[in-house]
Amino acid sequence: MRIIIAGAGPAGSLLACYLVRRGHHVAVYERRPDPRGHDDEEGRSINLGLSARGVRALTDVGLMPAIWPLTVPMRGRAVHAPDGRVTFQPYGRRADEILHSVRRRDLVVSLVDHAEAAGAVFHFGHRVVDLDREGPTLVVEHEGRRDAVPADAVVGADGAFSAVRALMHRGLRADLHQEFLPWGYKELTIPRVPAHHEALHVWPGGDDGLIVTHPNLDGSMTATLFLPAGRLAEMTDPEAFFAERFPDALPLMPDLAKEFADRPVGHLVSIRTTPWHDGGKVVLIGDAAHAVYPFYGQGMNSALEDCTVLDRCLGLGSLDGDHLGLAFAEFERSRRPHTDVLDELSRQNFVELRDRVRSPLHKVRQRADLVLAGLFPGRWTPLYTMISHTTTPYADALARSRRQDAVLRWTALGAAGLGAVAMLAARKGR
Amino acid sequence: MRIIIAGAGPAGSLLACYLVRRGHHVAVYERRPDPRGHDDEEGRSINLGLSARGVRALTDVGLMPAIWPLTVPMRGRAVHAPDGRVTFQPYGRRADEILHSVRRRDLVVSLVDHAEAAGAVFHFGHRVVDLDREGPTLVVEHEGRRDAVPADAVVGADGAFSAVRALMHRGLRADLHQEFLPWGYKELTIPRVPAHHEALHVWPGGDDGLIVTHPNLDGSMTATLFLPAGRLAEMTDPEAFFAERFPDALPLMPDLAKEFADRPVGHLVSIRTTPWHDGGKVVLIGDAAHAVYPFYGQGMNSALEDCTVLDRCLGLGSLDGDHLGLAFAEFERSRRPHTDVLDELSRQNFVELRDRVRSPLHKVRQRADLVLAGLFPGRWTPLYTMISHTTTPYADALARSRRQDAVLRWTALGAAGLGAVAMLAARKGR
Repeated sequence: MRIIIAGAGPAGSLLACYLVRRGHHVAVYERRPDPRGHDDEEGRSINLGLSARGVRALTDVGLMPAIWPLTVPMRGRAVHAPDGRVTFQPYGRRADEILHSVRRRDLVVSLVDHAEAAGAVFHFGHRVVDLDREGPTLVVEHEGRRDAVPADAVVGADGAFSAVRALMHRGLRADLHQEFLPWGYKELTIPRVPAHHEALHVWPGGDDGLIVTHPNLDGSMTATLFLPAGRLAEMTDPEAFFAERFPDALPLMPDLAKEFADRPVGHLVSIRTTPWHDGGKVVLIGDAAHAVYPFYGQGMNSALEDCTVLDRCLGLGSLDGDHLGLAFAEFERSRRPHTDVLDELSRQNFVELRDRVRSPLHKVRQRADLVLAGLFPGRWTPLYTMISHTTTPYADALARSRRQDAVLRWTALGAAGLGAVAMLAARKGR
Repeated sequence: MRIIIAGAGPAGSLLACYLVRRGHHVAVYERRPDPRGHDDEEGRSINLGLSARGVRALTDVGLMPAIWPLTVPMRGRAVHAPDGRVTFQPYGRRADEILHSVRRRDLVVSLVDHAEAAGAVFHFGHRVVDLDREGPTLVVEHEGRRDAVPADAVVGADGAFSAVRALMHRGLRADLHQEFLPWGYKELTIPRVPAHHEALHVWPGGDDGLIVTHPNLDGSMTATLFLPAGRLAEMTDPEAFFAERFPDALPLMPDLAKEFADRPVGHLVSIRTTPWHDGGKVVLIGDAAHAVYPFYGQGMNSALEDCTVLDRCLGLGSLDGDHLGLAFAEFERSRRPHTDVLDELSRQNFVELRDRVRSPLHKVRQRADLVLAGLFPGRWTPLYTMISHTTTPYADALARSRRQDAVLRWTALGAAGLGAVAMLAARKGR
């Protein structure tokens, strides 16, 4: 079959790999220029943290061997306290429970090369302008010329502000929840970090901002400063702001003033929507179907995992009749509850990173989690571990975490009860 | 100033009246044909229940004398039990605490006539196709021709699926929550009702549907059947369905089979969004800014009230500099919290009408509300009364209702406590 994918980001280009493998004819249309000729990422979302779900998807299509050399391990969080002290919090107990920092562009270039070599055809600089759902036919514009491209199905992998989604939803009973975080961000550079290069550094500033960094292959780090959008837009003297709020970060950023002036303010949007598909003609994946705030580091990982799930739905043997229609319906049915949970978790983790990560209680809880995981191997798994280091579906991970918490509460209560009984018995015995 | 209004529904045409009165040049562009030449409402939202907020707004522009003859009073709910018994529940304690049924078309025609006579210019059959926010300039299409209309400000009064909203939000950090109720509706006719013509009749069917009627001037009633959208679309034998679920309604609808086949399924959407304005150039009112499910009967009333609130914001003396920008900002700041509350109340009232209105507990509570209102006149006002029979802003009404509930709880607790003390004292005295 002939399948058109709108969008050559991580999700679109990975899905191209999966679909070509299934024997489909795949054409990918992307609004931006070919990343292999350009290195213009507009100062936005340069770095990503690859975790178990993304690794599994890339392994599925045989791409991980090519990706590993492009990644830098992140073994935990290096949390910077206001007094300059740095605490290292490992991401897991085992050596492989870590994340992998990768540049978005490097990942996309690998995926596009791989998909192209396998037979997918990429058209860059093509903007989606219309969609005839019945055909389906996608209308794209390139250098002022419009082309109507017929297909058996159209995939919208064109991001949080998906044109395919808007065109597909016209006249349908479509729910859409689009919400901007009141905070924006700016990407800055740390040329060299004195310690813990293989970590995600965090400066939790409460209401006064949050800095998160990702390591790069050349020893530098990309820092993202999050702040209320209004303050970010109005800030005229970033050095004075850093000197007051993040004094130990200031000396790490020699180009702060220039970068701050040059780079645009990025915005963070959450999208929940339904339906994800129109019969067997159009389907959405990745940010087009569900965009999350970046604070659980799962935005791209969930987009890559979408491809794995959609591929499995396409491979379900029992489907007949409208094969694509059933596969797309099964994709939304089985996948959306999990990405809804991820949306919730990503919101909570914003508060976690901004405020709680520096609190003593958080450290105690995090350590207790790891101790319990050591005491009951395979039976007690912290939520963060399930989300980041396993491929347990998101909602299942949350449900299991809640069961574990309940067991812990009852165990604690039981222990207290037993203690009380023992004490009474001892008294009576006196 | 020259102000363009997109949309000649109740909100757009009432705002035209207000703005002309302030001395502005007002042009209204409406996608549909002139209602004075057509009577084609597509079987949707034919009847509306005018309540205190709408009455005040229409009184403000001097229109109520012309509207009263077009209305039928609704003095309460006539609730139909499954066994055919009908219970009448008055809407309030006082004779003026009632609602007024009016045909949407009659109301709009009055408003358009009134605005036109005052100087506003209406252009029907004009579709909004583009908006230049900077000008602002609204681009409209009419019989295949496009016109760019410059103005000092553009008002989007073009309904829940507002084109002005979508065009205004392009590139802005705009939140949008659009949610369809999983239930749809169909409008049917009851030529004559045996009793209680001056009432809103309700058949609460729980999960099996809900019928609500509005009386018409000619003695007939318009009935709206609400059902899960899928069941409504798939229903082939409505008479069998009515015979089973609403047996006492069936004989009232002689044209049921034909009407059911001919009329489209209507859908119900809730919209919450922000921003409502772009500087002093564009502003949204009515359903374009906030659409609610119809179950509190406040959708049109809140849209009419928007015009009153926006008019007051435009009249604020202290505004200077960017007068319109400040007025639009003040409109959103002061109004949105209230329409957010209305959205919540309208969702709750769906459950109320569908399930609870027929429960004995509901009747007791409703009667208790009215008794308390009689005991403490002016100090105890049921929530429904505040929403429907006063112009207390929605959120203030909800807050006051919660305070009243708290007082009642403490009073009950105090009484119980006093009783217990008295009992103990009596025992000791024995």
